[in-house]
Amino acid sequence: MLKIRKIALDTEPENTAFLSRHCAAYRAEEFRALKKIEISAAQGREKRGILATLVIADDPAIVGREELGLGAQAFRRLGLPEGALVRIAQARPPKSLDAVRRKIAGEVMSPGEIDAIIADIATHRYSPMEIAAFLIASASFTTTGEMLATTRAMAKTGAQLKWDAPLVVDKHCIGGIPGNRTSMIVTPIVAAHGLQMPKTSSRAITSPSGTADTMEVLADVSLSIDRMREVVQHENACLVWGGHVNLSPADDVLITVERPLSIDTREQMVASILSKKLAAGSTHIVLDIPVGPTAKVRSQGEAIRLRKLMEFVAKEIGLVIDVVFTNGAQPVGRGIGPVLEARDIMAVLKNEPGAPADLKARSILLAGHVLDFDPALRGGAGRARAQALLHSGEALAAMERIIEAQGRTTGDLLPGALCADVIAPRTGCVTALDCFRIARIARLAGAPMDKGAGLDLFKKIGDHAEKGEPLYRIHSCFKSDFEFAKSMAMESAGVSLDDAPVRESLRK
Amino acid sequence: MLKIRKIALDTEPENTAFLSRHCAAYRAEEFRALKKIEISAAQGREKRGILATLVIADDPAIVGREELGLGAQAFRRLGLPEGALVRIAQARPPKSLDAVRRKIAGEVMSPGEIDAIIADIATHRYSPMEIAAFLIASASFTTTGEMLATTRAMAKTGAQLKWDAPLVVDKHCIGGIPGNRTSMIVTPIVAAHGLQMPKTSSRAITSPSGTADTMEVLADVSLSIDRMREVVQHENACLVWGGHVNLSPADDVLITVERPLSIDTREQMVASILSKKLAAGSTHIVLDIPVGPTAKVRSQGEAIRLRKLMEFVAKEIGLVIDVVFTNGAQPVGRGIGPVLEARDIMAVLKNEPGAPADLKARSILLAGHVLDFDPALRGGAGRARAQALLHSGEALAAMERIIEAQGRTTGDLLPGALCADVIAPRTGCVTALDCFRIARIARLAGAPMDKGAGLDLFKKIGDHAEKGEPLYRIHSCFKSDFEFAKSMAMESAGVSLDDAPVRESLRK
Repeated sequence: MLKIRKIALDTEPENTAFLSRHCAAYRAEEFRALKKIEISAAQGREKRGILATLVIADDPAIVGREELGLGAQAFRRLGLPEGALVRIAQARPPKSLDAVRRKIAGEVMSPGEIDAIIADIATHRYSPMEIAAFLIASASFTTTGEMLATTRAMAKTGAQLKWDAPLVVDKHCIGGIPGNRTSMIVTPIVAAHGLQMPKTSSRAITSPSGTADTMEVLADVSLSIDRMREVVQHENACLVWGGHVNLSPADDVLITVERPLSIDTREQMVASILSKKLAAGSTHIVLDIPVGPTAKVRSQGEAIRLRKLMEFVAKEIGLVIDVVFTNGAQPVGRGIGPVLEARDIMAVLKNEPGAPADLKARSILLAGHVLDFDPALRGGAGRARAQALLHSGEALAAMERIIEAQGRTTGDLLPGALCADVIAPRTGCVTALDCFRIARIARLAGAPMDKGAGLDLFKKIGDHAEKGEPLYRIHSCFKSDFEFAKSMAMESAGVSLDDAPVRESLRK
Repeated sequence: MLKIRKIALDTEPENTAFLSRHCAAYRAEEFRALKKIEISAAQGREKRGILATLVIADDPAIVGREELGLGAQAFRRLGLPEGALVRIAQARPPKSLDAVRRKIAGEVMSPGEIDAIIADIATHRYSPMEIAAFLIASASFTTTGEMLATTRAMAKTGAQLKWDAPLVVDKHCIGGIPGNRTSMIVTPIVAAHGLQMPKTSSRAITSPSGTADTMEVLADVSLSIDRMREVVQHENACLVWGGHVNLSPADDVLITVERPLSIDTREQMVASILSKKLAAGSTHIVLDIPVGPTAKVRSQGEAIRLRKLMEFVAKEIGLVIDVVFTNGAQPVGRGIGPVLEARDIMAVLKNEPGAPADLKARSILLAGHVLDFDPALRGGAGRARAQALLHSGEALAAMERIIEAQGRTTGDLLPGALCADVIAPRTGCVTALDCFRIARIARLAGAPMDKGAGLDLFKKIGDHAEKGEPLYRIHSCFKSDFEFAKSMAMESAGVSLDDAPVRESLRK
């Protein structure tokens, strides 16, 4: 038996265990070839065990001969105190991997097999390599039946919310467009109208902000399911972080492999989005698909194929879906990064004259589609109703109530104090903004970890810029981030003037 | 810039880097999502860099704020001293991954693309996940052209031996049968005859011994290419460890992913075996495919398909191949584990009356096929010639010369002193031996790490056993291994008496 010891290494999402090469009780070499061990509590405790990837340690300061080191994830998931006694054994690969192997050989997976695979993935029984095997076997060919079964299986793995209302609406964007924070305007409009919209959002993973990050500038977003219910009961809606309520956790594991591999299949996107909506208890969804040269979906044809897939699965799992194509040519609004985005959102809700017109128009469009689900409104009247609720200040009042109910953030969050402007090197017209590049610069500036970090865009496509006029401003909170962001912006700013990219043009 | 620090963790085959979450120069979170970084020496040195998987550390004792920790593999491959200054950057994924992605989407890879993929894999630029992507995309469908290109690409990645002789023979077994050490008898027979046979062998990875492990009981096997040439020049043959001469190193990387995933495609086996033979400079090869219920190839049909694949690729790359099907129903010889196997081999070479007859017969069969490549022998005369060389003691003399030339091992290696017998729980006839189970027990006993550990088989299929008679003996060098091996043998011994498996039958 070995004593467990916590090793402060973060190997998310993987469980990692560290065994001394000169372990007293086990022959480390014996486990090495297959790399995976099963760790179980020694007797006397309830039966619990985890699978972990094995690393062999040659330094007694890291792990001693009678110890088993556990990385942060493995330690947390095993749930035993330091010093607890455990046994280890060569891990039997999850049984569901047999179905993955048959899939590789060309067979179709049954819904039962997919259930088992997804359950094993959600409980961290698959190594990243094994997850890659599942994803790639599916990426080469997935039947619509498999896609459907995957969606259902993913929805089943975590919490499943139920609501009393007959109509539970939601709005989702497939992402990829910086500053596209319409959810924070659509939700209060819908709440003001009186429909139930328990909005769960994600935090940024590779982007400069997720809706949960931006909402957190204004209010607490890490609500328990019970607190979330209370807020929705009183205010019709909420804007909380979905990660905290554990919806479709298999998706969170899958994404940690999809991202480094850049596997991005439509089928997996459909299963990911719709499983979360199903688990969240939504009945009617508006889905925003931005289309543009630097967006996730780059052509109308691609957008239509994705819409058809979404509609097919939604119908089968009993969700009503309304897919809206939007302009994905450039970032939305002005601010990129939590504080700067929150500022734009509040400006729109407050009907301030300088509020970004594109963010406002797009929010009204999407809110209108959501309101059209209300049978009490006559077809097509949703948009006018959305506009009225925004203009009258009712949406702002709803937002303030939601913020209060979730717990208002105390203290003012301000844009990062370190600033530099990217300026127009010549007079011209802005002809392109590269969503990907702009997101990258904002992220280097420190967003979303530093709430005030990010970019503030002064010129959008079609705008005229005089030589020397600022195109956007970089905000950072820390010197090192500031330097990284500036040097990337100098290399290429992500803006084109009269079709020529802006480079080496910074005023410090 | 960060100072490198060696971290004594073995993450073979992967490069791993450890960065403090509170790193002074870089934002750890920025690299986290994609998990992979590029490490390069700060200026002033020749340009060198490696890719590594990133782990975030929260313990300043493991890695400080101004340091970059490197696991054993990454440290070795970067090749800089501790304290050297490096820069890190988000890794650009290897360009060849685009071809893998197209393969996943259903396209066929060109020879040029396969060259680039295999070169990147051999130089550790692919993470295990990315290797899995390549293997699985190929496992679902590989054209014969792709298999051929993979074989050629793999042969090109490492050392490529050239020999002066017009006929350079080799003999290879696809493996899976414990005790099947015919190479150590075939090679001296062939050397005695006068053909050139520069035999490179592998060490065990999941089996209780590889030919290199067993040969090491008798002689040094870690020879440089130059020393290997000298031995072959003087003795016609050698028996060295292939890992030391770096033949087809991509194969060694691929296997670290194939094994934990249990992906075992015929195409990959063909590329693996034939690329090594091509790189070794062989011209004529005898390939042993054991067929049996617990062997790698389980039916005649499967064996024939594999033979056709081997013949196709061998022909295209200019190798003459002679495929021999052998009985793979049970282990060969008596000893399983380096010392015990070496004892059997020397008994056969010395024509001792008690030498295992099956090992002898099989060695003569295979040596005969190798000698048949000699145009000076009349077709089919190889077998008689092999028998004669063995019986006359010429093969033994050749073996002694090879041992001397490579460097004889000093000191006697003996079977492990801790012994226990698995005994017949009833009188009956041995009807089956499970190769997989027996290998597992021998490995737990300590083979191949402890040369003397392993099993000594007293009864083979068809033998009669009286109740209480020993079926086999477990040898261990260390108490803990001994206990593990015994408890696994107690659970199920891997022997059947009159078709009933032997369980819980041990005399200590």
